[in-house]
Amino acid sequence: MVKVAIVGASGYAGGELLSLLLSHPGVEEIHLISRQHAGQPVGVVFPHLVHRDDLVFEPLEPEKLSSAVDCIFGSTPAGAARELVLAAMRAGCRYIDLGADFRLRDPALYPRYYRFAHDEETLPWLSQAVYGLPELHREAIRKARLVANPGCYPTAVLLSLAPLLKGGYVGDGPVQVCALSGVSGAGATPAPGYHFPEMTENARPYQVATHRHTPEMEQEASWLAGRPVSVNFVPQLIPASRGILATSFVPLARELTCGEAVALYRQAYGGERFVRVLDEERLPQIKAVAGSNFCDVTVRISPDGRTAIAMAALDNLRKGAAGQAVQNFNLMFGFPEETGLTAVPVYP
Amino acid sequence: MVKVAIVGASGYAGGELLSLLLSHPGVEEIHLISRQHAGQPVGVVFPHLVHRDDLVFEPLEPEKLSSAVDCIFGSTPAGAARELVLAAMRAGCRYIDLGADFRLRDPALYPRYYRFAHDEETLPWLSQAVYGLPELHREAIRKARLVANPGCYPTAVLLSLAPLLKGGYVGDGPVQVCALSGVSGAGATPAPGYHFPEMTENARPYQVATHRHTPEMEQEASWLAGRPVSVNFVPQLIPASRGILATSFVPLARELTCGEAVALYRQAYGGERFVRVLDEERLPQIKAVAGSNFCDVTVRISPDGRTAIAMAALDNLRKGAAGQAVQNFNLMFGFPEETGLTAVPVYP
Amino acid sequence: MVKVAIVGASGYAGGELLSLLLSHPGVEEIHLISRQHAGQPVGVVFPHLVHRDDLVFEPLEPEKLSSAVDCIFGSTPAGAARELVLAAMRAGCRYIDLGADFRLRDPALYPRYYRFAHDEETLPWLSQAVYGLPELHREAIRKARLVANPGCYPTAVLLSLAPLLKGGYVGDGPVQVCALSGVSGAGATPAPGYHFPEMTENARPYQVATHRHTPEMEQEASWLAGRPVSVNFVPQLIPASRGILATSFVPLARELTCGEAVALYRQAYGGERFVRVLDEERLPQIKAVAGSNFCDVTVRISPDGRTAIAMAALDNLRKGAAGQAVQNFNLMFGFPEETGLTAVPVYP
Amino acid sequence: MVKVAIVGASGYAGGELLSLLLSHPGVEEIHLISRQHAGQPVGVVFPHLVHRDDLVFEPLEPEKLSSAVDCIFGSTPAGAARELVLAAMRAGCRYIDLGADFRLRDPALYPRYYRFAHDEETLPWLSQAVYGLPELHREAIRKARLVANPGCYPTAVLLSLAPLLKGGYVGDGPVQVCALSGVSGAGATPAPGYHFPEMTENARPYQVATHRHTPEMEQEASWLAGRPVSVNFVPQLIPASRGILATSFVPLARELTCGEAVALYRQAYGGERFVRVLDEERLPQIKAVAGSNFCDVTVRISPDGRTAIAMAALDNLRKGAAGQAVQNFNLMFGFPEETGLTAVPVYP
Repeated sequence: MVKVAIVGASGYAGGELLSLLLSHPGVEEIHLISRQHAGQPVGVVFPHLVHRDDLVFEPLEPEKLSSAVDCIFGSTPAGAARELVLAAMRAGCRYIDLGADFRLRDPALYPRYYRFAHDEETLPWLSQAVYGLPELHREAIRKARLVANPGCYPTAVLLSLAPLLKGGYVGDGPVQVCALSGVSGAGATPAPGYHFPEMTENARPYQVATHRHTPEMEQEASWLAGRPVSVNFVPQLIPASRGILATSFVPLARELTCGEAVALYRQAYGGERFVRVLDEERLPQIKAVAGSNFCDVTVRISPDGRTAIAMAALDNLRKGAAGQAVQNFNLMFGFPEETGLTAVPVYP
Repeated sequence: MVKVAIVGASGYAGGELLSLLLSHPGVEEIHLISRQHAGQPVGVVFPHLVHRDDLVFEPLEPEKLSSAVDCIFGSTPAGAARELVLAAMRAGCRYIDLGADFRLRDPALYPRYYRFAHDEETLPWLSQAVYGLPELHREAIRKARLVANPGCYPTAVLLSLAPLLKGGYVGDGPVQVCALSGVSGAGATPAPGYHFPEMTENARPYQVATHRHTPEMEQEASWLAGRPVSVNFVPQLIPASRGILATSFVPLARELTCGEAVALYRQAYGGERFVRVLDEERLPQIKAVAGSNFCDVTVRISPDGRTAIAMAALDNLRKGAAGQAVQNFNLMFGFPEETGLTAVPVYP
Repeated sequence: MVKVAIVGASGYAGGELLSLLLSHPGVEEIHLISRQHAGQPVGVVFPHLVHRDDLVFEPLEPEKLSSAVDCIFGSTPAGAARELVLAAMRAGCRYIDLGADFRLRDPALYPRYYRFAHDEETLPWLSQAVYGLPELHREAIRKARLVANPGCYPTAVLLSLAPLLKGGYVGDGPVQVCALSGVSGAGATPAPGYHFPEMTENARPYQVATHRHTPEMEQEASWLAGRPVSVNFVPQLIPASRGILATSFVPLARELTCGEAVALYRQAYGGERFVRVLDEERLPQIKAVAGSNFCDVTVRISPDGRTAIAMAALDNLRKGAAGQAVQNFNLMFGFPEETGLTAVPVYP
Repeated sequence: MVKVAIVGASGYAGGELLSLLLSHPGVEEIHLISRQHAGQPVGVVFPHLVHRDDLVFEPLEPEKLSSAVDCIFGSTPAGAARELVLAAMRAGCRYIDLGADFRLRDPALYPRYYRFAHDEETLPWLSQAVYGLPELHREAIRKARLVANPGCYPTAVLLSLAPLLKGGYVGDGPVQVCALSGVSGAGATPAPGYHFPEMTENARPYQVATHRHTPEMEQEASWLAGRPVSVNFVPQLIPASRGILATSFVPLARELTCGEAVALYRQAYGGERFVRVLDEERLPQIKAVAGSNFCDVTVRISPDGRTAIAMAALDNLRKGAAGQAVQNFNLMFGFPEETGLTAVPVYP
């Protein structure tokens, strides 16, 4: 039995982690850390958990926490994980970072995309951190002390591109990515752009070709392809709470029929519990995955055979955040990978 | 281990039952009966279950089915359960009816509200059928062979009224009920009134003071009060998939403060796993219960002390249908009542 | 040609007024007053008006403004209109108050419901203010210098109740009102309860039996009935931007069939341009009125004949706010009543 | 004054045309043709027009209609316009086709994309038909007898690409287009994929790289570029009633900064009433155009300077269908181009 803490527990990813860990048979103790809500019962923040007012948010005390628990799930703003991660590493506590502080291997990218810099204390841990996409890095995750849980968009995009990239099918030129996200991806803090009347019946792009998840996609795509792959990424908000639907236009290096492409994906994900490869008759949709840890993927080929169109759907708070974090947790602590993650999507 | 069948398995209630029963530890075999989709794998109807194409819909053969399984969950149109129920009863198979054929004790009400009549073969079973609202009829359900699973609206309204009715607080005059429902309550069959462009950003009443769930509410409310209680019921569709939010204006027979009323509710539901009584600071909302078997209730008193305003929220496909059916199933087969029903709401 | 100003022009009601007045043939000049956005072009606040960046928000200078324009539309928080109204009245400028400061005739109600008090300077104007529901007070509005534009909920509820109240059909006991509102009714300021992920697929009551619009409904209902009428009011937010759908349960003083009741409504509203009485086959719905100044009403009678169920739908920003304000403006300045208000609803 | 008819008047485009033409000062008579609803008043189909039950749907009689009116707006399924167009052309009646029968100049494309073929009677008219995108073909439209009103997706995509294509900035390789559409784009006929519970909180691609609007985009893009341009098109449904948001990834033939690109767009659309070019700080969004005839466009350049990302938003029923048809009508009959189209978007 494992003792865990969720830091940043009053956010959406934190709440989703709590929901998942409450029914995880291997977890015996959950500490909920929230500066803003310390001392309050969970029902104040999470009306769906009003029956669990026995659970109370606690203030953050990095040293004490690191020695009290076996694993910390950190959901903190960019650059804010430093002290906590260092405390955890010193104490031998494992750390799953749902933030972005350890996702990029190249330290030079942090100042540009996240406006903070790693230092000599964190750099050794950055080099040891494992990018926590189990379908790509399963064995490394099992042994990791520090796991960088991927961003929601990169998870969808990378899972839908991996078979093409690994198979050497991707040609020159950028991969063009258009991805839709539910508004929960923007977090629980109200702002004009997420005010209900502004977003209902709306859809809008943001951070066109400048979004922080771009270098993360490029890093892993390049690693998969064995050579530099560049990505142009256009994220768009749609009027839904949850879900990501990603479409990528991929220049093909060599010919591939749609049937061959789908077969390639089936082979790549044959043993995977959470990646469902859809056949030539079916396309991914958010409602088929929302409330679950599934990522549905498929691929089509343009009529002229020069472009592959890869698509993926997932729930940004599950496979795109908390679900994937629990999947990593299971790998790190030796539980069956699907423990606590067997819920089927809530449909319709 | 129990063998079960879902008849009408391709509808929304059927799909929800399937989702719940797939992870029920006491169920060893599930037959999915659907005339329309017999021979097709579940993924054709339910995109969220595309990974379970090992499950295939079967045609309906009442006699054969009744001897093959221990319990049938029937989700059939009004008047259509007859043959199946009779076959099940003959075979000693238990039956949980998610339809309306056995909810009303007075046979005279069926022709008026449901356009069919019971006959001499079904009447004995009508008189033995137990109204499957566990919080009101738990002991009878345990022993029942035939359970009439309540309607979604009556479940919400009755749970929010029961403490007042049982306590003798309800005075003369009708209870005025205004209840909102998500569109999944209208079923999976497309129709102009449920076409997405027509319902988004819309809200509309329907069957004002004539809805079929009215006599069901009156039957149980009268039973609780020990005297006839009449209900005026205005159902309204709102642009959501799931959820019911019911508001009832109740004439008070004697004075009651809001604090006393909430205390009365807490006492009434103290031991209940699925009814959460909200305090004077909190009000029910659909998002706090969607995806779970919870029904949240509370009550307020009008400034002049003459009217109680009782409110309830639940997920129409869980506590309002399939979740409640599984709760009844657990009672009938001796499983802990919450088995398979511990999922917390999906939020936000 | 009339010169006008909108004070509080950066809110939703202000923006709606601007949209309507921009195409009003009798308006020659529009001043947009917004403390927060003074100096900014309208496109910064209203992305739908990005082509009108020639319009710039101005700071509030009550005296100067009152002498520069013929009519002020004030959309200000409770208690904030005082100085501006006094300046306008001194300058002979007419004032249409979309706020609540002059809606209630009884000064004693303001401290309780709105946490401010009228004083000796404003009291004379309070007694001269006309409640701006044209269908009830048309002639008084024509001559008014100060019009109190009704609340969105009271407009819907009163229009749906007026024929019964005026006709002497309403018996003893409270009128029970359950009304749904789109989230734009809560204004343009983001807050957790209006954050998109919290409100989509949700519905929730608020201020149960304590909402500020209650005394406004009671005042006018009592005036219509010629005796005190009390109202229990339960407002509920639904996941839509615009729209109000109000349902009122009315105790009947004498018998009335549904046909007679609908005929009574048709007679009452025969000459009205903006009230559409729906027949026995049709029920009000938000989508049939959104984007227009229409209020659709109808009525049903309970099976026992003791309760009338009156229903109304309107667009809270049009007939519930800005549209009604323009209707009042037309009456006050001698324009045909429908000037600038002929847009049909945007459907679907 | 002009007499007009709307054929296919009970669909969404037909209803939108009716709303626009009802307030068009140059239209004196409107015939509403609907086989399905002949003899019924408009309120039966369009609840928002319940006050106009004086308008009654008529059956289709091509010869009679063509001699009774000056202009027919046809909104008919693929291949169904033949007889009506021929009758109109014989009678000297002008025809604005909101369907697809005359959009593609190459007759060989119809069997493949629309499953019908032109014949010797229609081919001469096909060659005379003008593609009704006023911003590209204004002068030809003025003189046209038969106008092929563009598809909703092509209107958005072409308006956002035209300045780059005309300016010679588009390099080799396909233009990759990802476009979101509200569900009203799929028409008024209910189907499982458009059932409210299926589409709310959902998003899904369809007809990936096979959609009928692809050759239409390629035809006009090639014409603008002066050489063949190929398009890969991925349409996606989002949970909104109205709106299109199109994103196109364009390979650049030569360097261009974002500032230069936006300036190019401003220059291209300087005199246009309905195309709003957004600056470097603003991005298109559906809510800024819904309910209006505006198309908002802008462009960004990828960090490596090799890709332009062009974006557009419009209301599929206005600028994407009925609004554009009225714009064409105005050009054909000599009315100012914005007549009847000055409504600002309904926001929020």
